[in-house]
Amino acid sequence: MRKPIKVEEAIERVMKWSYEGEKEYVSIEESFGRALAEDIKATTDVPWFDRSPYDGYAICAAATENASASTPVLLEVVGTVGAGSVWEGPIEPHQAVKIMTGAAIPDGANAVIMVELTQEVIKDGKTFVQIKRRVAEGENISRIGEDMQEGCLLVEKGTVINPGVVAVLATFGYYRVPVMKRPKVAIIATGSELLEVYEPLEKGKIRNSNAYMLKAQVRRAGGEPIVYGKVKDTFEATFEAVTKAMQEADIVVTTGGVSVGDFDYIPNVYEKLGAQLLFNKVGMRPGSVTSAAVADKKVLFGLSGNPSACYVGFELFVRPFLKAMLGQKNCYLKKVQAILKEDFLKTNPFTRFVRAKLSYDDGMLHVEPAGKDKSNIVSSLVQANSLLVLPGGSRGFKAGTKVDVLLLEDEEGAPKWP
Amino acid sequence: MRKPIKVEEAIERVMKWSYEGEKEYVSIEESFGRALAEDIKATTDVPWFDRSPYDGYAICAAATENASASTPVLLEVVGTVGAGSVWEGPIEPHQAVKIMTGAAIPDGANAVIMVELTQEVIKDGKTFVQIKRRVAEGENISRIGEDMQEGCLLVEKGTVINPGVVAVLATFGYYRVPVMKRPKVAIIATGSELLEVYEPLEKGKIRNSNAYMLKAQVRRAGGEPIVYGKVKDTFEATFEAVTKAMQEADIVVTTGGVSVGDFDYIPNVYEKLGAQLLFNKVGMRPGSVTSAAVADKKVLFGLSGNPSACYVGFELFVRPFLKAMLGQKNCYLKKVQAILKEDFLKTNPFTRFVRAKLSYDDGMLHVEPAGKDKSNIVSSLVQANSLLVLPGGSRGFKAGTKVDVLLLEDEEGAPKWP
Repeated sequence: MRKPIKVEEAIERVMKWSYEGEKEYVSIEESFGRALAEDIKATTDVPWFDRSPYDGYAICAAATENASASTPVLLEVVGTVGAGSVWEGPIEPHQAVKIMTGAAIPDGANAVIMVELTQEVIKDGKTFVQIKRRVAEGENISRIGEDMQEGCLLVEKGTVINPGVVAVLATFGYYRVPVMKRPKVAIIATGSELLEVYEPLEKGKIRNSNAYMLKAQVRRAGGEPIVYGKVKDTFEATFEAVTKAMQEADIVVTTGGVSVGDFDYIPNVYEKLGAQLLFNKVGMRPGSVTSAAVADKKVLFGLSGNPSACYVGFELFVRPFLKAMLGQKNCYLKKVQAILKEDFLKTNPFTRFVRAKLSYDDGMLHVEPAGKDKSNIVSSLVQANSLLVLPGGSRGFKAGTKVDVLLLEDEEGAPKWP
Repeated sequence: MRKPIKVEEAIERVMKWSYEGEKEYVSIEESFGRALAEDIKATTDVPWFDRSPYDGYAICAAATENASASTPVLLEVVGTVGAGSVWEGPIEPHQAVKIMTGAAIPDGANAVIMVELTQEVIKDGKTFVQIKRRVAEGENISRIGEDMQEGCLLVEKGTVINPGVVAVLATFGYYRVPVMKRPKVAIIATGSELLEVYEPLEKGKIRNSNAYMLKAQVRRAGGEPIVYGKVKDTFEATFEAVTKAMQEADIVVTTGGVSVGDFDYIPNVYEKLGAQLLFNKVGMRPGSVTSAAVADKKVLFGLSGNPSACYVGFELFVRPFLKAMLGQKNCYLKKVQAILKEDFLKTNPFTRFVRAKLSYDDGMLHVEPAGKDKSNIVSSLVQANSLLVLPGGSRGFKAGTKVDVLLLEDEEGAPKWP
């Protein structure tokens, strides 16, 4: 007889074995979606030279001291400086340089007047800019370090690289980007009933959907899946697949074979490996038979063969372990509160994790089950963006109740199990 | 002088030119993250044979009619059927077959009793199962088509393939998956001030961050970026890059060169191409100079060279166009309401799109600016998961006000511009 433990206890037992993975370098081009292996700091001030935020004229402010609509000042335009070029030599107080957005302020200039506030005037073959107002020293100059100082922390280690992070990396010259290696996750689907996706159906058999689903879950979490195909329900085949996977992968995930049926060999495999059993029964639905063990310091996750239980088991147990390997402090699923849209009056002694759809309405969060919640219905997974958590016990839940919801498509995560 | 048009009008002008892209087939292994090109329907009933949802014994219900704790019934166990195998020949009313979860119900049996409710008894060298209660006909049998009927719609065209969709595809034998081709998006960064990411800084120059950022934005939206490198601020170089890109890509995105500076050549390029200008000024901050034009039925997006304006311009204009090419009805950014966490008292005649961080608190949505909101600060993009929309006009916005927020990391989208 197996004794169920609480979900939080099961997660804690697994996470005790978690560790940070290795670092590697990839080009910035390949960095999107990877987890940063180091804090990213500003390698220079920004701007790193005084520059013009507008198209206009770089001038000496003092020259405009007495300028007004009735007494405009004329400054000689001695040239134009575009973004990327540098004006050679200082300008004199009676001169101006036409300047483009982003260009460096010429030596001698200490202000910029926007082009819209001026007029060009040709006189004696020379070009002048007419200025009808006083310009203050420093006006319209983006100063060195105004936006950011060299050395300041920009992006924390573990952050998944999004387009904004890519922009920061490019700005500061990170062509080679330190990222965490993708943890290798072995996926073994056990079950003599399993057919390949391309095989025609036979009576008693179904197609192997869990391996493909897990492969996508591993990718979504940032890992590198290695699929070991489907394995027949024999002890030898299962043992062989698991031992091979332990040599090649960082994490070994099996699906199926963990229940109490005559052909459920995962418990025997753990035993023969001399593995330390972490748990083999969890107080949760679906997936109460979810198991985990440690052999040679490698964690073996024994997920249920039932598609929904397999899905939930991955997100609750494997995902945080994988995220921790990616150096992420916030390795757990993020929990939010939402208003239940439907009654759940049937009670259950175990905590239920219902695949759910979280929606937004007028500033409030609402949650409802995604499709029918039978654990063998894959279609309810299609629309699930969250898991609705219904604590076990003797009470049902009425529509309108505030409940906990775990987000499945959120990169931010949480620092601990809710 | 350019006349600003409203953001919604600008989006409408672009989307009039949108069209659905082409379809291709990829293996299920490569389908994660792609957009479905067809509705996916159930190719069989599920289950497609009567099967056992539990480990137990397949029996004829009638044999248990008089069973009770005091008068248990003994049925002879004639064998075991595991998932994936089929019991040959019908069973008689006095017989039982031990059956595992997922196995097909043997002919002659019409109910399953869970193993936990029985006991095995050996008598005269034969194995019997002892049953102490009446079992109803049909009990614990998952019937053909109980979960799903052949032909029913499972996943809609345009859906981005997530792990749940992969499970559905595998279950129904979709080894080759019809997906939309990734639209090819040309990215051209203009500006003589631009350095490569690996180049050391020179006075007046900055590294090209927009091209890398846009590349990641294109990937996030489901497109295939083609980066044409950086282009000097000359008419010839800009014209050459744009015409080359038009031949190779479905969508052409430039960044920089759209303002009114002396070296802003995009308007001239549009003119020489004989392009139909869709707009060259939009009532928005940042990015009021964002432009778009159509040449040879190809849309050219002229985004601002300012990193934040470039980012926002992509999400507002290019993303929905790209999503429409991916066959997605919900091609626009999803809008939600949230409570403003900070004052925005400064007014602006134009609608502001502030890079923001949406958070959840006790069932409510809250929003705050991500980092400082200067349009030239890339660091504020790092934490942005949304755009906070502040309508233009003469009023400021106090903390606590309910405001519109556009979600950037949501796959669901919306059927029309908010």
